[in-house]
Amino acid sequence: MEEKNKAIFAVGNQSVKLPMPIYIRESASIVGEKEGKGPLGSLFDMVGDDELFGCASWEEAESTLQKEAVTLALGKSRVNKNDVRYLFAGDLLGQTIATSFGLREFEIPLFGLYGACSTCGETISLASMVLGGGFAQNVMCVTSSHFASAEKEFRFPMEYGGQRPPCATRTVTGSGAFLLSTEKGQQPKALITGVTTGKIVDLGVKDSFNMGCSMAPAAADVIAANLRDFQRQPSDYDRIITGDLGEVGQQALFELMRQRGFDITSNHMDCGMEIFARDQKGTLSGGSGCGCAATVLSAFVLKKLQEKVWKRVLFIPTGALLNKTSFNEGQTVPGIAHGVVLESC
Amino acid sequence: MEEKNKAIFAVGNQSVKLPMPIYIRESASIVGEKEGKGPLGSLFDMVGDDELFGCASWEEAESTLQKEAVTLALGKSRVNKNDVRYLFAGDLLGQTIATSFGLREFEIPLFGLYGACSTCGETISLASMVLGGGFAQNVMCVTSSHFASAEKEFRFPMEYGGQRPPCATRTVTGSGAFLLSTEKGQQPKALITGVTTGKIVDLGVKDSFNMGCSMAPAAADVIAANLRDFQRQPSDYDRIITGDLGEVGQQALFELMRQRGFDITSNHMDCGMEIFARDQKGTLSGGSGCGCAATVLSAFVLKKLQEKVWKRVLFIPTGALLNKTSFNEGQTVPGIAHGVVLESC
Repeated sequence: MEEKNKAIFAVGNQSVKLPMPIYIRESASIVGEKEGKGPLGSLFDMVGDDELFGCASWEEAESTLQKEAVTLALGKSRVNKNDVRYLFAGDLLGQTIATSFGLREFEIPLFGLYGACSTCGETISLASMVLGGGFAQNVMCVTSSHFASAEKEFRFPMEYGGQRPPCATRTVTGSGAFLLSTEKGQQPKALITGVTTGKIVDLGVKDSFNMGCSMAPAAADVIAANLRDFQRQPSDYDRIITGDLGEVGQQALFELMRQRGFDITSNHMDCGMEIFARDQKGTLSGGSGCGCAATVLSAFVLKKLQEKVWKRVLFIPTGALLNKTSFNEGQTVPGIAHGVVLESC
Repeated sequence: MEEKNKAIFAVGNQSVKLPMPIYIRESASIVGEKEGKGPLGSLFDMVGDDELFGCASWEEAESTLQKEAVTLALGKSRVNKNDVRYLFAGDLLGQTIATSFGLREFEIPLFGLYGACSTCGETISLASMVLGGGFAQNVMCVTSSHFASAEKEFRFPMEYGGQRPPCATRTVTGSGAFLLSTEKGQQPKALITGVTTGKIVDLGVKDSFNMGCSMAPAAADVIAANLRDFQRQPSDYDRIITGDLGEVGQQALFELMRQRGFDITSNHMDCGMEIFARDQKGTLSGGSGCGCAATVLSAFVLKKLQEKVWKRVLFIPTGALLNKTSFNEGQTVPGIAHGVVLESC
C-alpha cells in the first residue's frame, strides 16, 4: 500500500501526466452571429442568427448555448447520455446560472467549476484526472459565454450603450462541449497527455477593461511551469495557444516570456485573436469569455490536431478573477490559467 | 491497455470507491461571533469577535476566513504549503471572489469550484479522485460563507434591514479547511471511502427564502443513489448528514426518503440545525452557506469519527442553484448535492 501512496503521475511542481490515453472523442461548438461572420465562421457546428436563441432573456440564451453544445456533441459521438458519467461545466455569470439552467435536463452528475475564462481548461484538466484515475469512462466538459449576459453581469446592460477602450475584448457568444473518454471511438479528435494547473497570479492590474494584461502573467506562469515540468522548449509545441489575451495581452505575454528566457513569438496563438477579424466592428483587442477558448478549441484547434497538421499543442485558457463588487471596492484583477497538452492521435 | 480503459473504480450509476486510503489528515474551522455562541461554539478552532475580521468590507472579511482556515489547517498538520499540490476551493459570492482574494497569497495551483452550499462536498469529492488517481499526495479543500456578504449578494445589504420568513436560513459566517492526503500523518481525522455525485434536481420551488425545500430533493436523490450504489441501508451509517436543509428542509427530506422506501429519521443530522440553538435570535430554520457544512464537518463530525464514536457517516452538503437575476426573472431554484462517505480510521 505504501508504494501506491506516491503521487506517481505528478510531474515537476505543477503538472501531471496521464496514466492511460484520454481522448477528446468528440466535440461541438455553437456561436452567435458576429462569431459566425468571423474568420472561423464556417468551422463552427452551428451559428445562431438570433442573439437570444429563441429565449426571453440573455441568461436563458446562454443556458441554451450550453444545452445545444452538449446535445450536438452527444449526437455526433453517438454516445448515449446515460453513458456519460459526469458533466464538468461552468460559465461567467454569478453563481454560474447559465450552467445550472442549461444542463438541468440532462440529469447527469455535475461538477460545477469556476475559473473565469480559464474554465474550459479547468474542466478538461479535472475531467482528464477523473478519467485517468479509473473513475469514469466518458465525461462531458462544457463552458459558455454570451456577449450580452456578460456585459450585464460585469459592466452595464447593453441598453445603456457603455463605451469600451481599445484594450477591451468582446465577450464571445458561444459554447463548446467536449466528450472526453478512455475509449478511442471512431474518429478521436485528439489525445490529452498532460495537465499544468495554474496559481492565482496578481501583478496589480486594476483596469477591468484591460483583462489581457491582467491574465498575461498567469498565462506566462503556466507556460513556463509546463516547459519546466516536462523539460520542453517552446518549439516542442506546434502552437502555444492562450484563451483570450487579445492583441494587447499578447504583447504583455511575449515580454513576460522573454523575461523568463523563452521566445514564443513564432508559435503563439490566441483564440481571442482568431475568432474575430481585426476589422470586425466592436471586437477591439479580440474575443474573450469561457466560450471563446472552448469554441475555437472545438472548431479550429482540434481540427488541426485531427488532420495531423499540428502534432502537439499547449492549450491554456486564461481567466480574470473579478466581479462587480471587487472592482467597485478597488481590488486588483488577478489572473489564473489552466494548461493542457493536446496531441494528435 | 484495453483492460485499463474500464472505469474500475466506478460503483453503480453515480458513485466511486477510492482505490487507496485517502485521509482527511487535518482540518480547521473559523467562525463568527454568533456561531461561536451556538451549541458547537467551543469546538471551533477560532471564533472572531469582529464580523469584519479586521477588514474594510464583508467580501474581504470572507476572504480572510478562507486564508485563516487554510493557515490553521497547515499549521496544525505541520505540512509545508509547498507540499500541498492543489487547492480545491469555492464560496457563494459572484465569480467566487472570496476564494480568489483569500487564497491568492498561498501560490498553490487552484481548482475553483461552484456548487452553491454543496461546494464543500464537491471539493472533497474531486480532491479524493485526484489523490486516488495518483496525481497528488496532499491537497487542501476550503470553502467559506459570510452572513453579511451573502445577504448583500443574494438579498439586500444588511443596512436595508430586510425581513425574512421562518423557513429562511441564516448564512453561517465561517470557513472550514481540510488537508486531504494519501499519507496517514500522526492523527488522521477520517478516511474517505466513497463519493456519490449529485445531479441538478428541480421540483419547481421558486421561493428563494425556502432553500431547504429547494435542496431537499437533491439530497434525497444523492442519499438514495448512495444506498443503491453501495447496496447499503440507512442503518449502515451512524449518521446521514446533510449540509443546510434546516428544520423545514429536514421534514421535506424525511418525506422524500419515505417515498423512496427509506426511513432516515433516526440517524439524520443537518449541519444547519446543529450550528445554532433553536432559540438563537435570527437563526430561523437553521444555518446555511458553504461555511456551514464545512465548519460543522471540521469541528464536530470529524471529531466524532476521530474518537470512533461514529464509524461511518454519509456527508452530503446541499446547494441551491440561483442568483439574483434568475430569481428576478422568475426562474425556479434547482438543488444539487455532493455526497462523500467518511469512516473512522
